[in-house]
Amino acid sequence: MRGNELPAHRLRGQLTRRRVLEHTVDLARREGLEALTIGRVAEGNAITKAGLLGHFPSKADLQLSTVDAGRAGFIADVVAPASGRPEGIERLGALLRRWIDHGAQQPGGCFIASIAAEFDARPGAVRDRIAAMVHEWLQVLEGMIRRATRIGEIKAGTDARRLAFELHGYELSMNLRAQLLGDEAAAALAATAMRSAVLACASRKGRIAFERGWADAR
Amino acid sequence: MRGNELPAHRLRGQLTRRRVLEHTVDLARREGLEALTIGRVAEGNAITKAGLLGHFPSKADLQLSTVDAGRAGFIADVVAPASGRPEGIERLGALLRRWIDHGAQQPGGCFIASIAAEFDARPGAVRDRIAAMVHEWLQVLEGMIRRATRIGEIKAGTDARRLAFELHGYELSMNLRAQLLGDEAAAALAATAMRSAVLACASRKGRIAFERGWADAR
Repeated sequence: MRGNELPAHRLRGQLTRRRVLEHTVDLARREGLEALTIGRVAEGNAITKAGLLGHFPSKADLQLSTVDAGRAGFIADVVAPASGRPEGIERLGALLRRWIDHGAQQPGGCFIASIAAEFDARPGAVRDRIAAMVHEWLQVLEGMIRRATRIGEIKAGTDARRLAFELHGYELSMNLRAQLLGDEAAAALAATAMRSAVLACASRKGRIAFERGWADAR
Repeated sequence: MRGNELPAHRLRGQLTRRRVLEHTVDLARREGLEALTIGRVAEGNAITKAGLLGHFPSKADLQLSTVDAGRAGFIADVVAPASGRPEGIERLGALLRRWIDHGAQQPGGCFIASIAAEFDARPGAVRDRIAAMVHEWLQVLEGMIRRATRIGEIKAGTDARRLAFELHGYELSMNLRAQLLGDEAAAALAATAMRSAVLACASRKGRIAFERGWADAR
């Protein structure tokens, strides 16, 4: 047995944990983190409450693990596919295109948008974890905008925080229209708004690089 | 007794109902409509559960009445102060400025933004009522943009639905940053984004009228 192999019961445990978290991320996206009661999640995974509590000692622990798993899914679906591109506006284009597709293709919409508003007024560890995740993602966007500005792809004087604020707003508006109003044009509206916002402050060479990242990301 | 006066017990009942709904609108803005349990609301208003159920026969009824009361408060705080202005871009300016102030000054943020994401995946009467309220407000904004376009204050060819989508996004982004991240610059970011978005598609005379509505609305 090699050192990185697990005994069978530990492996089974990890598989159960992963399966439960796939279920809870999906449930949280559709109904919110408050829907994650021990009883309901145990039933949804055909295990006993005691068995579930062996993996997640409390509802708060289940919620925190779900935020972490949702964040990992967001990274795999949105951030990782763009990571091979040059830093700057090309990668920004790929990130934005993937972000829209992520929100449009998942039942319940974008994981971050779905749970961000739910805990905003409930102090505690779950709220802090969600806030850290939203903050981290905004920092990624702002960092990419600043990098593109330094290398002349975005015009000097562009306010990175303001542009990230606007892009974030388009994603939130898209999610709300798609989820609450059933507006089938929501993703197209977000795509037009995001693309126009970035192109309006891009240099000539920046526009070409942005379009390359945007077009190839699907 | 004049025809429009109420017997004392009916008047007391109306006052109680109004007081309860002020409380529940505030609670929903901060914690969501799911926080409105009969037990908690009765305790918060120092009345018995039976007394509360006399006014609101069920939790769903309490939630629906709270949505209606929150909508009325939004109209009184945002829509009514702008209603004396000429229809078109001047009134749009006043509406947007009031909308930002409404979201920035209320604990828990904008009523519509606070509850809109909560029920988006829970089919039923409450979700339908919230969706109707959001749809109605977007229609008000789009109608004002179209009117301004017809009278030459906004450039021909401007997509009213797209502009309303963007403005809505800025409000959602503001609420999330203020409520979840505690970002004190959120309202200023939203003000800059909204003003720039409208001015970018306004005609010369439209810009002057917009600034008049915007500046006077506080």
